[in-house]
Amino acid sequence: MTDFAATKAMFDLPTGVIYLDGNSLGPLPRAATGRVGKMMQDEWGQMLITGWNKAGWMQKSKDLGDRIGRLIGAEPGHVIMGDTLSIKVYQAVASALELNPGRKVVLSDNGNFPSDLYMASGLLKSLGPEYELRVVDPEAVVENITDEIAVLMITEVDYRTGRKHDMKALTEQAHAKGVLAVWDLAHSAGAVPVDLAGCNADFAVGCSYKYLNGGPGAPAFIYVAPRHAETARPALSGWLGHEAPFAFDLDYRPGHGIDRMRVGTPPVIQLTSLEAAMDIWDMADMENVRAKSIELCELFIAEVEARCVGLELASPRDAALRGSQVSFKFREGYAAMQALIDRGVIGDFRAPDIMRFGFTPLYIDEDDVRAAVAIMEDVMAHALWDRAEYKTRHAVT
Amino acid sequence: MTDFAATKAMFDLPTGVIYLDGNSLGPLPRAATGRVGKMMQDEWGQMLITGWNKAGWMQKSKDLGDRIGRLIGAEPGHVIMGDTLSIKVYQAVASALELNPGRKVVLSDNGNFPSDLYMASGLLKSLGPEYELRVVDPEAVVENITDEIAVLMITEVDYRTGRKHDMKALTEQAHAKGVLAVWDLAHSAGAVPVDLAGCNADFAVGCSYKYLNGGPGAPAFIYVAPRHAETARPALSGWLGHEAPFAFDLDYRPGHGIDRMRVGTPPVIQLTSLEAAMDIWDMADMENVRAKSIELCELFIAEVEARCVGLELASPRDAALRGSQVSFKFREGYAAMQALIDRGVIGDFRAPDIMRFGFTPLYIDEDDVRAAVAIMEDVMAHALWDRAEYKTRHAVT
Repeated sequence: MTDFAATKAMFDLPTGVIYLDGNSLGPLPRAATGRVGKMMQDEWGQMLITGWNKAGWMQKSKDLGDRIGRLIGAEPGHVIMGDTLSIKVYQAVASALELNPGRKVVLSDNGNFPSDLYMASGLLKSLGPEYELRVVDPEAVVENITDEIAVLMITEVDYRTGRKHDMKALTEQAHAKGVLAVWDLAHSAGAVPVDLAGCNADFAVGCSYKYLNGGPGAPAFIYVAPRHAETARPALSGWLGHEAPFAFDLDYRPGHGIDRMRVGTPPVIQLTSLEAAMDIWDMADMENVRAKSIELCELFIAEVEARCVGLELASPRDAALRGSQVSFKFREGYAAMQALIDRGVIGDFRAPDIMRFGFTPLYIDEDDVRAAVAIMEDVMAHALWDRAEYKTRHAVT
Repeated sequence: MTDFAATKAMFDLPTGVIYLDGNSLGPLPRAATGRVGKMMQDEWGQMLITGWNKAGWMQKSKDLGDRIGRLIGAEPGHVIMGDTLSIKVYQAVASALELNPGRKVVLSDNGNFPSDLYMASGLLKSLGPEYELRVVDPEAVVENITDEIAVLMITEVDYRTGRKHDMKALTEQAHAKGVLAVWDLAHSAGAVPVDLAGCNADFAVGCSYKYLNGGPGAPAFIYVAPRHAETARPALSGWLGHEAPFAFDLDYRPGHGIDRMRVGTPPVIQLTSLEAAMDIWDMADMENVRAKSIELCELFIAEVEARCVGLELASPRDAALRGSQVSFKFREGYAAMQALIDRGVIGDFRAPDIMRFGFTPLYIDEDDVRAAVAIMEDVMAHALWDRAEYKTRHAVT
């Protein structure tokens, strides 16, 4: 059993704050600063260039990929860290398209994170006018998986509402029609159990700064199914994906397996911070995390609906259809969220009217949920959100 | 005048080491660890998600771009940090190709860093068989700039020999033939004065972990000439390059100017480390750096040629044609470099036979050069490189 009191103690959470936005940026692991400091002083400072060998910097991308791989049901050796999620989406979709020659349509849904749609659309524009990005309603995805589709590109858990797609069913349907499936796990990795191998996913991508707690700008990851590992062509064919990067050949030859999805020099400092976060994840079992996450979400929904007037549940009511977040619609949601943040309850707002709250069992417990709802009740009952100070503030996050 | 004793004091250099590999990975600025630690504890730890606004994380990419921009002669507001150099090469070449429709050939030379060739070749393969990457000898570039060429993609300073192209002349020649010029400044930024605006360069890219000292995996930069800033289409069209990233529109609209070259979430920890490095660069004038660099390189060449038998100069003898490094050919260069490293003189080796030494006035002085050559003389005179221990070690860097 995962000891959630123990995991909570490993985070450095500010006093007076209930942090329900770990689905956007996870908090600081207590060990992260020391670990990064040590890497900078003892490795970069003392070993200099030799750190690439001596300190194992070059291995971090793959070691960390495997540690995340355990949480998402990937076969060992088939996940690697690097770049940003947007870049990894591009890489996965570009490779998947080439593995399905003759077809020109990428299917996605309008619940996908916009950057995934932007990256795919940018790619398809480069490839030519015969390529199409087809974006449908989330509920209409299954009926639109036809033998015209080359690639299905789906984010499993909707970033606004937490609505969760059925990865296994959609991937099966895709394969039945000769379609390759690319899954974005941004709101899945560390949030819900994922079984990439069991679902026969073709590609998957995700980021490590949300539920995984790697820190602001932590690198992304990419998974390529073993059956594609030696055939997928990396459109972003950088030197570290070369079979022999330090031979400095003029011609590109892809490396073996997931290594070919490396592009440039890995961000060693960010990877070191992520290591501290994964030390905590190594203590956790995803089934325990999921059970606890559902308890917290159910409690939050019940308490809010009992005590806060005017909020309308925007997430699926059935926990099985939901990720690890709960969203409510409220016309004045932007101002209301500002008022909450000022009272120490940090969630976030997504246009046009979504108040979003993430529940992360590694460091959020029932007491936090009850305390947060008590503050929400006060904010709503006294219409604090209606004050000018909360309406005018500029939002970036 | 730049005070090089003052800049040297701002680096944390290990005792007993003469570091002549800052052209591969710059050393640790003394302030970097503290600055990163403070950012992690006080900003990430305490502000959590609100750090994006409150701590100005989102501005770092552009602020640092401008600070590097000063060193490379870019107009303010036209350089931005992000991703790796390989990704930025892809982005620049893809954009440049579209700005020159109808032409299908990218011209480069075999002195370019292989990853640039790999990335261009991967891009062209995606675009179709009518596209061609034409790779010629460095000396033959100028005669191969014809009206068939769409994009000239050149690394100004050769990573192996330090041979330096004439950016102004080649760019002029390119423009005369209707060709767009993309410059890779990996071994130029912080090494030699660059005048992007004065040379009319169209695009430029570079990394910040070599001469700029940002740390292992520090992000890359990209420059787009003001005349292309509002027309270049970012093929890698990520959400942070969108005109309104937080509107979460389904359709992509490029942001204004250089902001459209942003892709995904910036690596805030790495950017913070780079800030400490740029504080040192803010004390430096590139003309002073260049003058001192030439002095150091000339001294090194003269001393080596006087005292070390068997090494053949691989860099141009004329300082004007050279970057900030000196390379020697030696058949047993790999083993000899291992022996030198064991004696505390850190340079590096590039296949097949290049021993490479970088000279970085911010923290290397004449005494270092003389001390390094004394050790080289001893290593060569006693054929230390001929010992088995130096021949068998595996190289990654």
